[in-house]
Amino acid sequence: MSGAALNLAAMKDQTTPTTVQIALDERSYPIVIGAGLLGHAATYAALPPAATALIVTNTTVAPLYEAQLRQALTGRYKQIHTVRLPDGEAYKDWATLNQIFDALLGQGADRKTVLFALGGGVVGDMAGFAAASYMRGVPFVQIPTTLLAQVDSSVGGKTAINHPLGKNMIGAFYQPRLVVCDLATLQTLPPRELSAGLAEVIKYGPIADMGFLDWIEQHIDALTARDPAALAHAVQRSCEIKAEVVGQDERESGIRAILNFGHTFGHAIEAGLGFGVWLHGEAVGCGMVMAAHLSQRLGLVEMAFVERLTALIARAGLATQAPVIDKEHNVDHYLGHMRLDKKAEGGDIKFVVIQSPGQAAVQSAPDAMVREVIAHCCANT
Amino acid sequence: MSGAALNLAAMKDQTTPTTVQIALDERSYPIVIGAGLLGHAATYAALPPAATALIVTNTTVAPLYEAQLRQALTGRYKQIHTVRLPDGEAYKDWATLNQIFDALLGQGADRKTVLFALGGGVVGDMAGFAAASYMRGVPFVQIPTTLLAQVDSSVGGKTAINHPLGKNMIGAFYQPRLVVCDLATLQTLPPRELSAGLAEVIKYGPIADMGFLDWIEQHIDALTARDPAALAHAVQRSCEIKAEVVGQDERESGIRAILNFGHTFGHAIEAGLGFGVWLHGEAVGCGMVMAAHLSQRLGLVEMAFVERLTALIARAGLATQAPVIDKEHNVDHYLGHMRLDKKAEGGDIKFVVIQSPGQAAVQSAPDAMVREVIAHCCANT
Repeated sequence: MSGAALNLAAMKDQTTPTTVQIALDERSYPIVIGAGLLGHAATYAALPPAATALIVTNTTVAPLYEAQLRQALTGRYKQIHTVRLPDGEAYKDWATLNQIFDALLGQGADRKTVLFALGGGVVGDMAGFAAASYMRGVPFVQIPTTLLAQVDSSVGGKTAINHPLGKNMIGAFYQPRLVVCDLATLQTLPPRELSAGLAEVIKYGPIADMGFLDWIEQHIDALTARDPAALAHAVQRSCEIKAEVVGQDERESGIRAILNFGHTFGHAIEAGLGFGVWLHGEAVGCGMVMAAHLSQRLGLVEMAFVERLTALIARAGLATQAPVIDKEHNVDHYLGHMRLDKKAEGGDIKFVVIQSPGQAAVQSAPDAMVREVIAHCCANT
Repeated sequence: MSGAALNLAAMKDQTTPTTVQIALDERSYPIVIGAGLLGHAATYAALPPAATALIVTNTTVAPLYEAQLRQALTGRYKQIHTVRLPDGEAYKDWATLNQIFDALLGQGADRKTVLFALGGGVVGDMAGFAAASYMRGVPFVQIPTTLLAQVDSSVGGKTAINHPLGKNMIGAFYQPRLVVCDLATLQTLPPRELSAGLAEVIKYGPIADMGFLDWIEQHIDALTARDPAALAHAVQRSCEIKAEVVGQDERESGIRAILNFGHTFGHAIEAGLGFGVWLHGEAVGCGMVMAAHLSQRLGLVEMAFVERLTALIARAGLATQAPVIDKEHNVDHYLGHMRLDKKAEGGDIKFVVIQSPGQAAVQSAPDAMVREVIAHCCANT
């Protein structure tokens, strides 16, 4: 993993768009990062020609950005349709996905029709899975409007919907043709969502680049204050690290799993409380604290490292103490949800642990130790 | 396209299994063809290890072959579960697909769980799409028990479910690890289904190999009488031709579309009458007659060729006259369904035509000519 640019001078001016390339042979594509990009026709100039575009967005994002995007696409497509989904993780299900298929078929969309996912992670996951499945695959573009989606979920081709028995259980690996990270959209983000996105930014430090962790610590106040230059650097460096990992392991048969640091515990929080009570990034933030404690108990990192990571997560505006999800059988309840994690094999839970600061690995852990971590991290609530 | 083995001596003895390889780099897999294969443990020896297997079948096929398959898998998997779907194209929908996801999640199936599709094209399409989507992809095996599935739908990785507005509109290209064509299963097939499968066998002649068409003409009575050696050769040669086409164009960006000869007209018949009234293969048989007439009107082939193909389709026990799907606006009704075909672009219908005997191409045709063909082929009913 190459080191991060550490000094302020190296931070890009937010008005100059930068590009990070995802290298996956014939499925390669660029992530363009800059302020105001989504409303410029030039942003879309390299897309394959088509008669029809379908914008998939939600009822929260549509009033803010749909008109801009339509305007930018008007010269390229004869017909531009929109589907506005209800907002929230609770709607990431088959019934809502089917609204996209209904729109595509109702308007006679063909195999060249381009889908534009305009919104956060839920919109991106659903529009992406719809694009993967409609006529067995049509082109799509990710236009993430949340920090979390810009630094994580829109990049790398993971798409999915939830099943009542598990999150992201039904989906596809399907790469977009283009990702447009418009930094201007971060200025309208609710504070909770900004913090949730910072959890995934912070994640890249302990798993891949301690220089980047140093930089985040130095700029955490600028990031929470939405300083454009700080956000631009955070998005770019996060995308660079993700691009390097995904380029090595598109379908998560190995190293890509390290991107799930904090996610095994985090998913238990989300599922245990009911999806949507904690935001995904909030659960990942707290999950990273738990995974760091597990790494420490496994003898991989010092307690000082755990405390340093915990302090940074707190400064990002995130909870660092895990919620009690069941008053009587809390630990068992956590473990039950964790056994349904996609990394589990034959009931054996796999954890992403920090092997040494800046390097992650996937391994199992003794059941008793995992129980101690859950009990410890929930104890002070 | 290489020539077919023409003499009887070249026909394989049905008791000797043969293998046709699908060459798709790291997604390559064998099709094994022989009598009694599905009940032998050795058939599955090369599959990746896993703790759990899920057999997906239907209520018609289960009583005939599920016990044999279970027996063969018992040594390999700690747990073997079965989902028995209702039988028929009408159930190729999301609700039925979801029964497979419910079973997988209900039994804690992990990412290594292997799905076995035991049945005809509908079971294969649904189990395949479930395997493509569960946790973004788990291994699966096709065990086609109909002639149509053995020579066409189980080979090449097309999976899908239907949408109320269109057939096979939601799906994935997802390759199995193994295809097991057990010729013994063809002996229990209802006669209508045998004829429907012969339509797809006949298809390979005009699009790719006139030597094979000669052979089919010589052996059509042996095929309808279920002569084991004749069926073995028909399945093997069909799979060889399909393997060659799919190996060149996995995702149907070009030549693979020729495998849809007869399917544009055929889909209109299926959709127009309501799915399940005509079997898919029956509709394709009649659709090939219509596509041959279109090719003749386009000046590509002689009327003698159309008549020869029509006679062979009739000898296979298939209808060669198209049904009236709407008493008042029959031709418009056909065209409406054809415009929803996946090959259509911006409302322009693309047809697979015979460019010269043994060679197919994809092209559009004048609207008036298509109308004449529909009117002509429906006229004599």
